[in-house]
Amino acid sequence: MDAPLTLAAIGVIRSPFRQQEGTPICPAAAEPADGTVEVLPPYRGALQDLAGFERIWLLYWFDRARPFSPLVVPYRDTIKRGLFATRAPARPNPIGISAVRLVSVNLERGELEVQGLDVLDGTPLLDLKPYIPEFDAFPLSRAGWMDEARLGTHLADGRFER
Amino acid sequence: MDAPLTLAAIGVIRSPFRQQEGTPICPAAAEPADGTVEVLPPYRGALQDLAGFERIWLLYWFDRARPFSPLVVPYRDTIKRGLFATRAPARPNPIGISAVRLVSVNLERGELEVQGLDVLDGTPLLDLKPYIPEFDAFPLSRAGWMDEARLGTHLADGRFER
Repeated sequence: MDAPLTLAAIGVIRSPFRQQEGTPICPAAAEPADGTVEVLPPYRGALQDLAGFERIWLLYWFDRARPFSPLVVPYRDTIKRGLFATRAPARPNPIGISAVRLVSVNLERGELEVQGLDVLDGTPLLDLKPYIPEFDAFPLSRAGWMDEARLGTHLADGRFER
Repeated sequence: MDAPLTLAAIGVIRSPFRQQEGTPICPAAAEPADGTVEVLPPYRGALQDLAGFERIWLLYWFDRARPFSPLVVPYRDTIKRGLFATRAPARPNPIGISAVRLVSVNLERGELEVQGLDVLDGTPLLDLKPYIPEFDAFPLSRAGWMDEARLGTHLADGRFER
């Protein structure tokens, strides 16, 4: 369990957001920011059949996040919460997941148009997965402190920026 | 974009499944298999506030998966599909995500009881995130070939095992 596990970026996410301040904190809360996902040549063949999905999961590397802190004040609250009870980027393994709307897929150029981006421009892409409601959608799931969140914030500030 | 990104396991997932054959292919399809998530000491402080969430995302490393193939025959189909249009483990960065039901959290021992596991026993844990319907639940999202999947399979076979 001690051996390091290594990842390689399979592409990059292009968004209008250059800094954390002002970036939406989740895809659903985002003003639907259009963006592009650029997939590197060795991985483009794996994009086949993706176009039929309305949403896809982007898995990406929080490359500009602060290092891990066990307790953070999340955007929607005013007190410290356990990091694993938040979606803040200061994680031990800084991997983010976002379910974004898929608009189009260009197989040859490895380019996906997406909507609802909540990530910084230039974020390294780690994986793409189809959004499958049977696996992923639990609309009535109780959401702890978020269900009583003190703040209705939809935009980030700079608190997690390195 | 070429520098390797490194991860370290933050814990391990304990499940009843010793091999891919017979393991559920997703949490929703699983007979609710009880299991345990064991979190290593340096990360236990970050578990605070998690107990209020009905479901959590497990992010984990597919440590026994075959290497990347761009096209795979998924469990629910009989023809090849682009890997990124499937949840198969043979991914360039072998990271899995599963929304499991959270039963209990023991902060001191770093142990979470969960239900609906679809992962192999001993799988390295990379991250825990709260399941937040506002961010994650899109129950009516169109799901491409999966919406017309030829097979109703709920269990894996050995096809992606290394």
